[in-house]
Amino acid sequence: MKYIDGGVCAAKGYIAGGIHCGIRKNKTKRDLAMIKSEVKAAAAAVYTQNLVKGAPITVTKNNIADGFASAVIVNSGIANTCNADGIEKAEAMCEICAKALNVDARDVIVASTGVIGQPLNLVPIQNGINELKESMSVENAEFAAEAIMTTDTIKKQVAVEFEIDGVTCKIGGMAKGSGMIHPNMATMLGFITTDTAISPAMLKKALSEDIQDTFNMISVDRDTSTNDMVCVMANGLAGNKEITDEGNAFDTFKKALNTVTVSLSRLLASDGEGASKLVECEVCGAKDKETARICAKSVITSNLTKAAMFGADANWGRVLCALGYSGADIDVNKIDVDFKSEKGIISVCKNGAGIPFDEDTAKEILLQNEIEILVNLNDGDFNATAWGCDLTYDYVKINGDYRT
Amino acid sequence: MKYIDGGVCAAKGYIAGGIHCGIRKNKTKRDLAMIKSEVKAAAAAVYTQNLVKGAPITVTKNNIADGFASAVIVNSGIANTCNADGIEKAEAMCEICAKALNVDARDVIVASTGVIGQPLNLVPIQNGINELKESMSVENAEFAAEAIMTTDTIKKQVAVEFEIDGVTCKIGGMAKGSGMIHPNMATMLGFITTDTAISPAMLKKALSEDIQDTFNMISVDRDTSTNDMVCVMANGLAGNKEITDEGNAFDTFKKALNTVTVSLSRLLASDGEGASKLVECEVCGAKDKETARICAKSVITSNLTKAAMFGADANWGRVLCALGYSGADIDVNKIDVDFKSEKGIISVCKNGAGIPFDEDTAKEILLQNEIEILVNLNDGDFNATAWGCDLTYDYVKINGDYRT
Repeated sequence: MKYIDGGVCAAKGYIAGGIHCGIRKNKTKRDLAMIKSEVKAAAAAVYTQNLVKGAPITVTKNNIADGFASAVIVNSGIANTCNADGIEKAEAMCEICAKALNVDARDVIVASTGVIGQPLNLVPIQNGINELKESMSVENAEFAAEAIMTTDTIKKQVAVEFEIDGVTCKIGGMAKGSGMIHPNMATMLGFITTDTAISPAMLKKALSEDIQDTFNMISVDRDTSTNDMVCVMANGLAGNKEITDEGNAFDTFKKALNTVTVSLSRLLASDGEGASKLVECEVCGAKDKETARICAKSVITSNLTKAAMFGADANWGRVLCALGYSGADIDVNKIDVDFKSEKGIISVCKNGAGIPFDEDTAKEILLQNEIEILVNLNDGDFNATAWGCDLTYDYVKINGDYRT
Repeated sequence: MKYIDGGVCAAKGYIAGGIHCGIRKNKTKRDLAMIKSEVKAAAAAVYTQNLVKGAPITVTKNNIADGFASAVIVNSGIANTCNADGIEKAEAMCEICAKALNVDARDVIVASTGVIGQPLNLVPIQNGINELKESMSVENAEFAAEAIMTTDTIKKQVAVEFEIDGVTCKIGGMAKGSGMIHPNMATMLGFITTDTAISPAMLKKALSEDIQDTFNMISVDRDTSTNDMVCVMANGLAGNKEITDEGNAFDTFKKALNTVTVSLSRLLASDGEGASKLVECEVCGAKDKETARICAKSVITSNLTKAAMFGADANWGRVLCALGYSGADIDVNKIDVDFKSEKGIISVCKNGAGIPFDEDTAKEILLQNEIEILVNLNDGDFNATAWGCDLTYDYVKINGDYRT
């Protein structure tokens, strides 16, 4: 498997584009994106668990209930959530997209991200759709990745190439999200495309399993968005024998999917609102997978741990504290904690109690851009990794007045 | 019932004091407090649910297992948590206190608050105990309230006077806590004293019931501390007929206790680390009490809602979002939201959707020091209130380098 360029158009048969249509006031910010598959593709998606759901979530769920999709339309700026006419407008977006791309409106995946509770204006979308359609190409995947950004500071794209039964397949994706991420208002959205031939059922299985250890293991602020969605389209144009069951081909596909989703997850966490560093917590020695996940996520969501990481303060007591209130059934007297970065690794806690360590070394390790918090529960063989970021002045600044 | 002065020494038969003994480097900060009841008192306490528990928690639990206590000793600066010799040292603190006050070490409530995982030095406690003992008086309750502070910016004391069967009774308390509050490292501690005659069993019942709607409904940062504890001592010196069962007298006592605990809870939330305002969320129309509690707490713990309150931004979508991911079983299409302060009240959401409102009026309301977020679930008759604070630059600053 190797990393390649191209994002959502890396795989065969996809074109994309992104323009500024006028949903946002800032004319230099693209705010509308589309992706189209040359042929109808198997499609699967996972959605926010928030009871308050964006209207596009409901509409997409209906549209891909049959396991297939042909295109994606996404706007940023307005979430189309908590509006009385939200469903109507999300459906209208599908129709606008379908008409322009000459596909069925029931085969369109629709997504919106931005402010909750403000009405979505369809006029700029209608007015801009032809310009957007004309601009779509393989190269313009990056404009699509730009158009879905809100408070994001970087485009998030990744793609890999792999082989199934000697046939070269590709999978690529783009994602956005910076705040309200516990996979929240800036909203996490992920769009993945592949040319692998795989049945809708197996595509859904691959995505549902993968998500537990990737997008569901990131958190910027513990606020689970109303509009989170990750979708994957598989158009089969690579030409491999269709994957319809478990086995080597499915495993290879899952590994490729995982490479893309882990990369996107890390990009989302490291670009968390106001974040100055990526904080990764790797929990090992857990008695079961769920315990490992709960513990890892509790550490990276702790405001106090996040603030300590911002300050490069080796305050491991906060890590222990977060493990202790996580709800996981663990023996706190067996826990070891290390801090690690490219500058080295340092042990700070053994068997639940502090051990002497060199503060200067710890500081140097924690001053880096990517920090790993290694937790060994010494209670079994399961492990899990969660990704978050530090809590900074800029997070407060960004969210003290998001709407203006 | 009326508010009176005196804190933990407002009720008959209690003396207290607080000194700087040297656990902290800053000589102007008191770091050791004691409270003594003239006679052995009924005692009850509730403790952190964090699996990582401070050693003083374990020792206090043992000491008041019989329902009685005579004295309290508390230090700030070091939490005595995650130390291999923590239990030993907490027990030694009880012994030092017991010897000085001529009581049984098994009748001492011990508490510590401060940095986790650093060893507690008993020498300054031993050296300072006589000075502390000599200083104890009714008036010096306020020094005790000062000595338990960590990142707190104000002393937290309250007391009320009430009547049971014509007999005047009093109840007063002090508390501390500013960060790691979801009843967290700065740690929530509450000490309440009363001269009401009440059996240990009824005292425990009153405290356990009360806590669900008071201390357990506050959050500064969603980090549940390792050392949280609220204890109450009742020495019976008011002379009322001992409360040994439910009834009018018990109800009156509970109401007085609740007045003290709500006041202390509000003080804790409003003095949350870095907080510039108290944020109260009142949820009504819930189908049951637990739903109301979960919803209220979810709103005041949402980082995004907290940051919006800091920015005086009427971003009610974040309130809806926090209700939606709370885990409570609610109908999001029935929810109404209002913002309220001493400047007035404004409706921003009706039936789960935005309604037009005047942004300038909303801003004026939200610029006040005490904000109420009123949520009506329109689904039943239960209500609950939770108290939190805004998320500010100063929270990040305080916690970016707590240990130095």
